[in-house]
Amino acid sequence: MIMKKIMNAPDHFVDETMEGIIAAYGDRVKLLNGDKRVLLTNYEVKEGKVGIVTAGGSGHLPVFLGYVGSGMLDGCAIGNVFASPSYTRMADMIRACDHGSGVLCLYGNYGGDKMNLEQAREDVEFDDIATTAVYVGDDVCSSPKETAQNRRGVAGMVYAFKIAGAAADKMMSLEEVTKVTQKALENIRTMGVATSPCIIPEVGTPTFQIGENEIELGMGIHGERGIQVREMMRADDIAQVVMDNILEDMPLSAGDEVSVMVNGLGATPLEEQLIIFRKVSQILSEKGVTVYMPHIGEFATSMEMSGLSVTVFKLDEELKELLRAPAVTPFYTNLNK
Amino acid sequence: MIMKKIMNAPDHFVDETMEGIIAAYGDRVKLLNGDKRVLLTNYEVKEGKVGIVTAGGSGHLPVFLGYVGSGMLDGCAIGNVFASPSYTRMADMIRACDHGSGVLCLYGNYGGDKMNLEQAREDVEFDDIATTAVYVGDDVCSSPKETAQNRRGVAGMVYAFKIAGAAADKMMSLEEVTKVTQKALENIRTMGVATSPCIIPEVGTPTFQIGENEIELGMGIHGERGIQVREMMRADDIAQVVMDNILEDMPLSAGDEVSVMVNGLGATPLEEQLIIFRKVSQILSEKGVTVYMPHIGEFATSMEMSGLSVTVFKLDEELKELLRAPAVTPFYTNLNK
Repeated sequence: MIMKKIMNAPDHFVDETMEGIIAAYGDRVKLLNGDKRVLLTNYEVKEGKVGIVTAGGSGHLPVFLGYVGSGMLDGCAIGNVFASPSYTRMADMIRACDHGSGVLCLYGNYGGDKMNLEQAREDVEFDDIATTAVYVGDDVCSSPKETAQNRRGVAGMVYAFKIAGAAADKMMSLEEVTKVTQKALENIRTMGVATSPCIIPEVGTPTFQIGENEIELGMGIHGERGIQVREMMRADDIAQVVMDNILEDMPLSAGDEVSVMVNGLGATPLEEQLIIFRKVSQILSEKGVTVYMPHIGEFATSMEMSGLSVTVFKLDEELKELLRAPAVTPFYTNLNK
Repeated sequence: MIMKKIMNAPDHFVDETMEGIIAAYGDRVKLLNGDKRVLLTNYEVKEGKVGIVTAGGSGHLPVFLGYVGSGMLDGCAIGNVFASPSYTRMADMIRACDHGSGVLCLYGNYGGDKMNLEQAREDVEFDDIATTAVYVGDDVCSSPKETAQNRRGVAGMVYAFKIAGAAADKMMSLEEVTKVTQKALENIRTMGVATSPCIIPEVGTPTFQIGENEIELGMGIHGERGIQVREMMRADDIAQVVMDNILEDMPLSAGDEVSVMVNGLGATPLEEQLIIFRKVSQILSEKGVTVYMPHIGEFATSMEMSGLSVTVFKLDEELKELLRAPAVTPFYTNLNK
């Protein structure tokens, strides 16, 4: 697999992606002081609304930049592909997103992002900005249940952005927004599978390999090793093993209501995502579980990696209301009122 | 390139995709009498609204099924991957989508689809259903300007669906809807490039090849040969050659307003699509042309093919109003009022 990316130069990959976003969606988003690594909402923010921010590596669009706008994220700092942004950028972003009521920092549970965001939070303390932090760790295959605090954040973070953004829009306090986001995350589980690798532009070769007729179960969105490599499986068997892992970790009972996200990792056709959703919805239906507002498409990718993830988000009335609340960002539009 | 698709069996690929759509979006769409090859809107249709329908092969999601709903298509008949549906299915669909004011058949300019739809239109004449037909032929590379009537329909058909659907929603007559859709198409041009092939499930091997370090310019969405094979190019050079071809065919002047669609063919990351949009918008800006409602993402794909297309849609006030009119379908949501 040689690198065949539609780009100008590896060093410009992230900046030019950001320039494309600004050129296309300048009505919804803007740069912070011209910095091509910090994106802010361009919608008017109500005074006193809690700010919702995130930070992380590039290469996962629509995560993270695609969710800045109205009803989700107020700001986002990005680094190079799969690399954390600096803590000074994160601190600048937090300052820009405080509107008097503090800022929730909502990010994937990765070492670099965590360390830098903690330092950024200390930094803004001197400006008397209150912050809270919630780490997303929805990937059930990245650590056993007993050490769930070590789990990585994957596509489930999109649901977390949506819930936190809607809670902030309702003018809930920082403490309340943080609490409901934590509640959401306790009810979100994801598992992914990959069938081909991706290439970091600055590296130029795949960072891992998957055999020609193999599928890797439980793989992370940066190519972190999964729990098992198997011969390529049928779609229904993939859906079954994914749902077995998710439901073992978070059992569901008849009468439960969930949202389901089938997320393409980048190169997987929508047809295949729908074939997986078909089986996932059958498995849930057989258990008496109802699906509310399914999300099918590319939400958190790894550039040209192929494969997909399934996220199950168990809902209650409060979470349903926040999930269906309006949002408009470059890559997420919610019509419901 | 071996076939590594997330599916159960080649013969079930299309039916199970359809089952996934119904499972996910049963509030927006429904089958016609349980037929897994004909999808209808599940929204209430105003009596007397002109019906908008299309038909074509599978393997291009969100084209076609993803645009059935409210404000775009009322019905869609599909065949196997890259194969036309039967004319009897098309006729059944047309009958189901007539609400007393006739039906516009809006489809890509491909031999099989054309032949079958013409026969279907003759068939429904016996039921006194008035129909018109508009063939989409937006691909500038598929035939020279002098024989533009032979051009293939590609991503530009999504704009045509939007305009026709909005015109019908405004309760315009069949003649008026047909006329404004034709006007839209006279102002729509597309060119695509491909960097890797795709595999038809029933075939199992790629139907064409692109060299490891090559890009094919002007390629069609079924792998139809393009106008040139070149060594892999920089993104800005790709955007330039695409825009040169489009603008030669449809010149633009300072003050013109256009919508631009950068459409990923299936495996091309959003980052790369945005890098192309960045340059396209620079080229237009230098000419004094304004971009209105850009569309960036996957709109008309070829499963796992990589590459992208650029569509330029020259607008006037009437077309702008129709473009921004509300629409809700499984894969297209327009918020504007």
